[in-house]
Amino acid sequence: MNGIYMDNAAGTRLLDEVLEEMMPYLVNEYGNPSSIHTAGTVPRKAVETAREQVADLIGAQPKEVYFTSCGTEANNFAIKGSAWGGMKKGKHIVVSAIDHQSVLYSARALERLGWEVTHVNADKKGFVDPGEVAVAVRDDTVIVSVTHASNEIGTIESVSEICIRAKEKGALFHTDAIQTAGVIPVNVDDLGVDLLSLAANSFYGPKGAAALYIREGARVFSLIDGGIQERGRRAGTENVPAIVGLGKAAELAKRDMTSRISVTTPLRDRLMNGLEQAIPKLQVNGDRIKRLPGNVHVSIEAVEGESMLFSLASAGVMAASGSSCADKALKSSHVLKAIGCDPALANASILFSLGFENTLTEVDHVLKVLPPIIERLRSMSPLWKG
Amino acid sequence: MNGIYMDNAAGTRLLDEVLEEMMPYLVNEYGNPSSIHTAGTVPRKAVETAREQVADLIGAQPKEVYFTSCGTEANNFAIKGSAWGGMKKGKHIVVSAIDHQSVLYSARALERLGWEVTHVNADKKGFVDPGEVAVAVRDDTVIVSVTHASNEIGTIESVSEICIRAKEKGALFHTDAIQTAGVIPVNVDDLGVDLLSLAANSFYGPKGAAALYIREGARVFSLIDGGIQERGRRAGTENVPAIVGLGKAAELAKRDMTSRISVTTPLRDRLMNGLEQAIPKLQVNGDRIKRLPGNVHVSIEAVEGESMLFSLASAGVMAASGSSCADKALKSSHVLKAIGCDPALANASILFSLGFENTLTEVDHVLKVLPPIIERLRSMSPLWKG
Repeated sequence: MNGIYMDNAAGTRLLDEVLEEMMPYLVNEYGNPSSIHTAGTVPRKAVETAREQVADLIGAQPKEVYFTSCGTEANNFAIKGSAWGGMKKGKHIVVSAIDHQSVLYSARALERLGWEVTHVNADKKGFVDPGEVAVAVRDDTVIVSVTHASNEIGTIESVSEICIRAKEKGALFHTDAIQTAGVIPVNVDDLGVDLLSLAANSFYGPKGAAALYIREGARVFSLIDGGIQERGRRAGTENVPAIVGLGKAAELAKRDMTSRISVTTPLRDRLMNGLEQAIPKLQVNGDRIKRLPGNVHVSIEAVEGESMLFSLASAGVMAASGSSCADKALKSSHVLKAIGCDPALANASILFSLGFENTLTEVDHVLKVLPPIIERLRSMSPLWKG
Repeated sequence: MNGIYMDNAAGTRLLDEVLEEMMPYLVNEYGNPSSIHTAGTVPRKAVETAREQVADLIGAQPKEVYFTSCGTEANNFAIKGSAWGGMKKGKHIVVSAIDHQSVLYSARALERLGWEVTHVNADKKGFVDPGEVAVAVRDDTVIVSVTHASNEIGTIESVSEICIRAKEKGALFHTDAIQTAGVIPVNVDDLGVDLLSLAANSFYGPKGAAALYIREGARVFSLIDGGIQERGRRAGTENVPAIVGLGKAAELAKRDMTSRISVTTPLRDRLMNGLEQAIPKLQVNGDRIKRLPGNVHVSIEAVEGESMLFSLASAGVMAASGSSCADKALKSSHVLKAIGCDPALANASILFSLGFENTLTEVDHVLKVLPPIIERLRSMSPLWKG
């Protein structure tokens, strides 16, 4: 891949160390972990080691970690599994309006099956108010989901406070930690959550492996039924190489978290502040302090997001307009809508998601190339009154 | 891995050629296919090439192929997605009693949500009778599922005949082709099916990639909701390396199918006949003609399945007692129960699943070592009256 990669929210590079750990399972150890003969032994142990590594990253017990194929599956499993497991209590769900599509559309799918869904709004910085969550929950609420951090605007929610209020009437609480686990400290007991989703691809692990944490004793049914894998809760032959990669990536993320954050945060701030200074009528979205260490999300008046991205790509910079799960559709962001962003401005947004492999030189390159791009695009824009 | 691997039904070796095709997507091309910048371009094209390769294997249009993370997910998607998409027509499902757990437990999960399920039995060779399927379908039946071939006893069903009868009252028809696609000729139009599941791991592709064929126009809802991937029908970041591997494996499977079958079939027959001659009171399960080319499934009176497997493993031979999805649980096989096999005999079963990499020498090794193992086990067995 050539160019400056600033789209780590859409997926990080697979680290060489992680791939190295995966290779034996791609080449020799192709046995099925569920086999009772010797070909199953090594893969089975490898899967359990990965489970310990993931548990260790989030302060869970290994038996509370269930492997899935991607973060989206983990979110579906959390919402639908809790709804199906909680039918005796009721059929009401609460989600935040800034949660990921995989949470929102899981809730919508359940609506078609007879569940009722309440959406809790966020303020203009993207914060969900614990008090509003408390108002939304009812005696028949079975699951409440609020993201740990928005994958678009980067705001980190006060999950521990939200969680306490969300559970006042006996609902389970889920947080989507796909943008935070492996990136900033995440501990299931500190947060108090019953369920938590994470994905390897957010912290330099492979595609194809993610996990759902389910607190011991929580009544959560399967999304994918069948065999006895994952203690009967997620059927299907384990993707051993990817799971091994997830485990290794979790181990490295824990070990290197502080140093990675100390690289990324100043780069983020330099880019954010630099863009603000260089480009008039530019708005930084999300909170400046409680913010993902690599997230720079801005809206730039009177330019079109797609044109910005293409121009940036021509200048060798790869960024996104928002969530990669919606990018190709180029739909307006539901997150920006939820925080009350003007639709025209929402479509003029750009997301740089930095990782620890980004450099000062790269950030300065963006600071050099983007302002003239904006100037040129604005000079052609009928909307620009500058 | 050391030893003689005869458990290909639980998963095949990843071919070097396939891994080679996957490597660039593990190393350099880590972009998200949904990204609109250049990092997404190569992965996106690779996913579409794989879709064409899979479509070509089964005679489908590429746009009818939806990638999933494993065969079990594809089966869940087929059954649950058809049920949810068909609610206006009714809430009745028909499955065969010898279908894979992922089909049966998907149906059971739907029962908990208010659907009604009818199980159609099989005869003692494992054949499902088209007439019985016709009797089971009703005006409110939305989906009928009958496996293409049993992953345990290897019997290949007359799917095209069953399908005609199953669809008489407007239901969709699904077949689980996880043991057949890439192994024997499979064509969705010849079979007449609306949905068909397949998995890379059955034909020397990687774990973590499978597909569901959905005939154009069939009303099937998502199992995994969220982003716009797979034309909105299967959300979640694509596991690009695994999907590329699935595509390449499909291409090779099509190219080499005849030669692979011509290697495997005589080995199967030599092993099956050889065991019958050498071991008294041994029963071959399934049909001898309409049988997967690598499947040898036998029940051996008065010995215990697990003891046989361990003894064989000590002699360097890796086989299975049945479905790997149930193996660790060591539960009695639902397939053997469905065909009326005596429970004691069912527990005395062993499955050798051969692939094109197995050799005559390996088969002859099994024929040499198994008879004395059986003799020894029987000499210790209170059940043996030989």
